[in-house]
Amino acid sequence: MKPANSTLANGEWERLETLEKRLGYTFTDRSLLLTALTHRSAPRLLDAHTANTNHENHNERLEFLGDAVLDLAVSALLYQHFPRAPEGMLSTWRASLVNTRTLGKVGEELSLGDLLEMGKGEDLSGGRKKTSILGNSLEAIFGAIYLDGGYEVVLQAADRLLGSRIRTLEEGKWDKDYKTLLQEKLQGSGLPLPEYRIALVSGAPHDRHFEVECLVGQQASGKGAGRSKRIAEQAAAAQVLSALAQKS
Amino acid sequence: MKPANSTLANGEWERLETLEKRLGYTFTDRSLLLTALTHRSAPRLLDAHTANTNHENHNERLEFLGDAVLDLAVSALLYQHFPRAPEGMLSTWRASLVNTRTLGKVGEELSLGDLLEMGKGEDLSGGRKKTSILGNSLEAIFGAIYLDGGYEVVLQAADRLLGSRIRTLEEGKWDKDYKTLLQEKLQGSGLPLPEYRIALVSGAPHDRHFEVECLVGQQASGKGAGRSKRIAEQAAAAQVLSALAQKS
Repeated sequence: MKPANSTLANGEWERLETLEKRLGYTFTDRSLLLTALTHRSAPRLLDAHTANTNHENHNERLEFLGDAVLDLAVSALLYQHFPRAPEGMLSTWRASLVNTRTLGKVGEELSLGDLLEMGKGEDLSGGRKKTSILGNSLEAIFGAIYLDGGYEVVLQAADRLLGSRIRTLEEGKWDKDYKTLLQEKLQGSGLPLPEYRIALVSGAPHDRHFEVECLVGQQASGKGAGRSKRIAEQAAAAQVLSALAQKS
Repeated sequence: MKPANSTLANGEWERLETLEKRLGYTFTDRSLLLTALTHRSAPRLLDAHTANTNHENHNERLEFLGDAVLDLAVSALLYQHFPRAPEGMLSTWRASLVNTRTLGKVGEELSLGDLLEMGKGEDLSGGRKKTSILGNSLEAIFGAIYLDGGYEVVLQAADRLLGSRIRTLEEGKWDKDYKTLLQEKLQGSGLPLPEYRIALVSGAPHDRHFEVECLVGQQASGKGAGRSKRIAEQAAAAQVLSALAQKS
């Protein structure tokens, strides 16, 4: 319920409450959430005396923090969900989740655009729909949740917002054949077939370490590493698949 | 005290206890710490049936997790310690702390090299002194602390190992004149003087956003952003200083 001393309009207050429901978290200090929703272009930030930005009142510091918050939360969820996946695979998946495109999409699902405070210029040029602004605001919200509720609450919110994407990533089948998948995808889209190059072989004969590059013409490339050429190639192919998915 | 059922030699056990004292954290499940100290080249990892790596028994998964763990811990410490520093400055400082060089140095201070389990080949080629191996092992240790003790304990350990570096970063003087500092440093080392280029100006007249690039010949470059050209240039200069510090 809106307290009597709130400066927010009724409609704005209700939208914040809706957002909190979707996040599964109610802020103790709602000013943190408001800061997370304030783009640096918002007019009330101008300090007439110094013409400097007041870094306390827009979301870029929270975004700095939230970027790391989300990165750890997603890493921890992946680590737990895929107990046998090698590091290279986990890194590829993390990158496919914690990026502007995916986070922007989640921000859109949360209708963050309607809630953002921003300058007129930014607003008129479609700022409320920009993937980067939505993704950055989502990061800032995670920074705010971390400061307000602590890390455990962050984990819950991350699972709520990204858990389904993590669970459908591979349905536990991380050892599926990425090379075949990549080849099929490339053939379907008229792109050149992938080329695999061994970039490094090191270690004693019983303990080899392979690093492989996968190149798709000039369009995409990926790297993978592992104890066998096959494993390294699979990881490289997975990285290319992930890169292509982010482009399309 | 070493339990009766431990398979560790007495000397190894004592070294682990010394490490725990330096970390300021005693593991409940010490096998996590041992995994964090196991390089992928360690011979006991070879699974004769599949010739695949057993990802449970070397430190690369923990390193994946620990990388994100350290990134958040350092971000949170910086955020707290520099309440008025803009995002670009915080990012620059974070990058100067969470990188192979700095983490490798901390790993060296902890004498991690003496404790690592690795293959003979890696050992003979100086693996125990490699910055990358020491840094990665430190990350893995943070992954292990996170799993064993939770995030709060991680924050304490990060503050213990990196807090002095954070506090001496700028002694709170984040608005010092980086452009002057950079110029002095370059003159002292015979490098060309920096060139500042405006990469982007956006926003309404009362709400400009500047992005500036700082170039030092072919040797180094940095980017900065801010509400004025001056602020953006300062941030870009700080980034170049940080890049140069990591090279030297």
